[in-house]
Amino acid sequence: MFLSKLFLPITKNLPSDAKIKSHQLMLRSGMIKQSSAGIYSWLPLGLKVMKKIEQVVREEQNNIGAQELLMPTIQSAEIWKESGRYNDYGEEMLRIKDRQGREMLYGPTNEELITDIFRSSIKSYKSLPQMLYHIQWKFRDEIRPRFGVMRCREFFMKDAYSFDLDDTTAKASYNKMFYSYLKTFKRLGLEAIPMAADTGPIGGDLSHEFIIIAETGESKIYMDKSIFKIDINNYTFNNSSLEKMIKDYSSLYAVTDDKFKKNEFEKKVTKENQMITKGIEVGHIFYFGDKYSKPLNCFVDNQDGKKNAVKMGSYGIGVSRLVGAIIEAKYENEIMKWPRSVSPFDVVIIPSISKNNKENLSKSIKIYDNLKKQNIDVLLDDVDENMSQKFKKHDLIGIPYQIIVGSKSTENKIEFKEVNSESSFIDLKDIKSKLIS
Amino acid sequence: MFLSKLFLPITKNLPSDAKIKSHQLMLRSGMIKQSSAGIYSWLPLGLKVMKKIEQVVREEQNNIGAQELLMPTIQSAEIWKESGRYNDYGEEMLRIKDRQGREMLYGPTNEELITDIFRSSIKSYKSLPQMLYHIQWKFRDEIRPRFGVMRCREFFMKDAYSFDLDDTTAKASYNKMFYSYLKTFKRLGLEAIPMAADTGPIGGDLSHEFIIIAETGESKIYMDKSIFKIDINNYTFNNSSLEKMIKDYSSLYAVTDDKFKKNEFEKKVTKENQMITKGIEVGHIFYFGDKYSKPLNCFVDNQDGKKNAVKMGSYGIGVSRLVGAIIEAKYENEIMKWPRSVSPFDVVIIPSISKNNKENLSKSIKIYDNLKKQNIDVLLDDVDENMSQKFKKHDLIGIPYQIIVGSKSTENKIEFKEVNSESSFIDLKDIKSKLIS
Repeated sequence: MFLSKLFLPITKNLPSDAKIKSHQLMLRSGMIKQSSAGIYSWLPLGLKVMKKIEQVVREEQNNIGAQELLMPTIQSAEIWKESGRYNDYGEEMLRIKDRQGREMLYGPTNEELITDIFRSSIKSYKSLPQMLYHIQWKFRDEIRPRFGVMRCREFFMKDAYSFDLDDTTAKASYNKMFYSYLKTFKRLGLEAIPMAADTGPIGGDLSHEFIIIAETGESKIYMDKSIFKIDINNYTFNNSSLEKMIKDYSSLYAVTDDKFKKNEFEKKVTKENQMITKGIEVGHIFYFGDKYSKPLNCFVDNQDGKKNAVKMGSYGIGVSRLVGAIIEAKYENEIMKWPRSVSPFDVVIIPSISKNNKENLSKSIKIYDNLKKQNIDVLLDDVDENMSQKFKKHDLIGIPYQIIVGSKSTENKIEFKEVNSESSFIDLKDIKSKLIS
Repeated sequence: MFLSKLFLPITKNLPSDAKIKSHQLMLRSGMIKQSSAGIYSWLPLGLKVMKKIEQVVREEQNNIGAQELLMPTIQSAEIWKESGRYNDYGEEMLRIKDRQGREMLYGPTNEELITDIFRSSIKSYKSLPQMLYHIQWKFRDEIRPRFGVMRCREFFMKDAYSFDLDDTTAKASYNKMFYSYLKTFKRLGLEAIPMAADTGPIGGDLSHEFIIIAETGESKIYMDKSIFKIDINNYTFNNSSLEKMIKDYSSLYAVTDDKFKKNEFEKKVTKENQMITKGIEVGHIFYFGDKYSKPLNCFVDNQDGKKNAVKMGSYGIGVSRLVGAIIEAKYENEIMKWPRSVSPFDVVIIPSISKNNKENLSKSIKIYDNLKKQNIDVLLDDVDENMSQKFKKHDLIGIPYQIIVGSKSTENKIEFKEVNSESSFIDLKDIKSKLIS
């Protein structure tokens, strides 16, 4: 893509409500545009990042055997009445009447609908366990939407649901999802900490939030620093290893505000390991047994031919929110650097162009064509600006690798720079290995 | 994927409103499940097909230089009042009040919102032309939703918008999209005929529907048969060739009901070339100039420093509807055969399994592993059923290639069958070439 062609409307005058850096950066770099309170359009640059995050989440769900389906955004109120949540949910639920006067709603979550799909499909323990997920737009009518995509009204979420015959196998499903989440966040370049959490309107008695540390976070967190030493790569995908993983995490203190008890914290965590900070919730998992399956009559036949209410859990990752969360974690000193796995482009070519000298531009186009042939997704900054303006702009766009074509590059050697590192001069043919190493 | 693990709830008792074959097949093969009137969940098999269609549509939009963004589903009523369509649109628009009492709606189309994005971003003719598109859920509150995904309320659509300085360049954009549509439908295995059409609530004076012939279609069509002889591959992607393409198509009579005039038809089309049949609309394109840009104040500076209202067109493809339309076109004599480009799996392995003999199953697993290593997306039917049940089921699932592992296959030769053709015995190593040839 040539930058002059890219639809990238950069906002210079930030609105006064853009208070946190992800909101500011996303507007300044033309990733999003607000369409109404808490509702955004995703412009090409922002959409590319979100789609890459979505794909990482999808692959890691598939890796643990979860199957993708897609439920609609608009649901009937009926099943919410069956579960008893229609009245409980409050004003955050966007309630709608259709032209026939039927009560509908824009799904804020999908426990009811997935249970309805499951109960009409699966009748025997032989088909268990099952894990199903979808990645779909949700709506929560926040009273005060703020922080850009971090707390908006229409948001993109992956929600998964597990179905098991009994508590033991259900907890194994929970552990698998726990593992998948840690893998997912690692691939996104994030260090996410699982924390015991309250279950809120979803219900149940077992729940973890996955939180990344960020000063702008809304959750206050209390933890034992040594949790950072646990390496997810030390566990393998089988029940006993995953049980050990959960035990290892649970043995270390890590809770959000709701669960915090001062004397417990001080008793369990040595002074030098105590860490009190803020974080952003990027995932939340729940085990709630038969909370929905019972009222919704979701039963399967067990080995003895008797009916069991299936044991369910639900598992959310905020895909659109992650775009903001990654910025909060990676945007420092006015320089953004996207993790390679989600960067909008693999590399950007920045030629020094002057009115009378287009030589660098034509040199850049040759490099561009060469990289394109190798299936590298490259952006060429062909805009007629001086280099300092260009570098400032790319500090916002945040592509982690730059090829700088100016006076310093020679016929054979190209100036290559990883953001926040020194540049070096390398052969064109070595670029690809730099981008994937 | 092993079929025993696939979440594929087959419906045996069809609801009485499943009158057309795509609706029936999608329920019988577990592709969709109705969640409320005109609103469906897409189960894994259905979602896989729809995602493949979406990707073909996306690639062909990118190929003509259109850029992808993503607008939200929920819009503010304000911009619809600016354009004057808020009152015009009628009851098909799903109108919503949020908790603050603001008037919102679930977007049935996006002319207003894209114009709003454009007017705040692009100020000069130098940035024109532009083509932007998104693939997003829409809602139209049909009074009588029917025919499954063909006329549902929540549907998945690609809508693109072009922005140009004047009529001439705007028509060139229209021609590009026309070309892209024919390419798209061809890749989907469909023969779509462009037909002069009415513009309806979108407006403007130039419009084509793209229609595939199907007895169950809702549109009556009148055409000159020789239109089938035009080959899109004879045109190239430049303005003069595309103008010729439009001329060639326009020279032959092809209209829907709204535009039909009997004496014109009989005058222009020779008796033996007259064709009167039914079809399904799968795409619709419009050129409407400044219909939206004027009331919404979407102006750019032209070469003389004066303000021009941008000239716009809009271009829709029904992605979810295409799943049904392809079935209507390809499901014959109780046998479905997906076009390779959108088949849910590349190939299915069907072993003959009996209680006492699992040899064919283990042979099949070896073939499965071998194909997986070659990145072939393969389904293995490991379900304990007899072969005639299996074949009946696969007549519905519709994967176009089958590997049959039974008494006839030998150590070295595998029975390979393309649906609706005779089977042959080939080497395992030759399978891949059969699937891509």
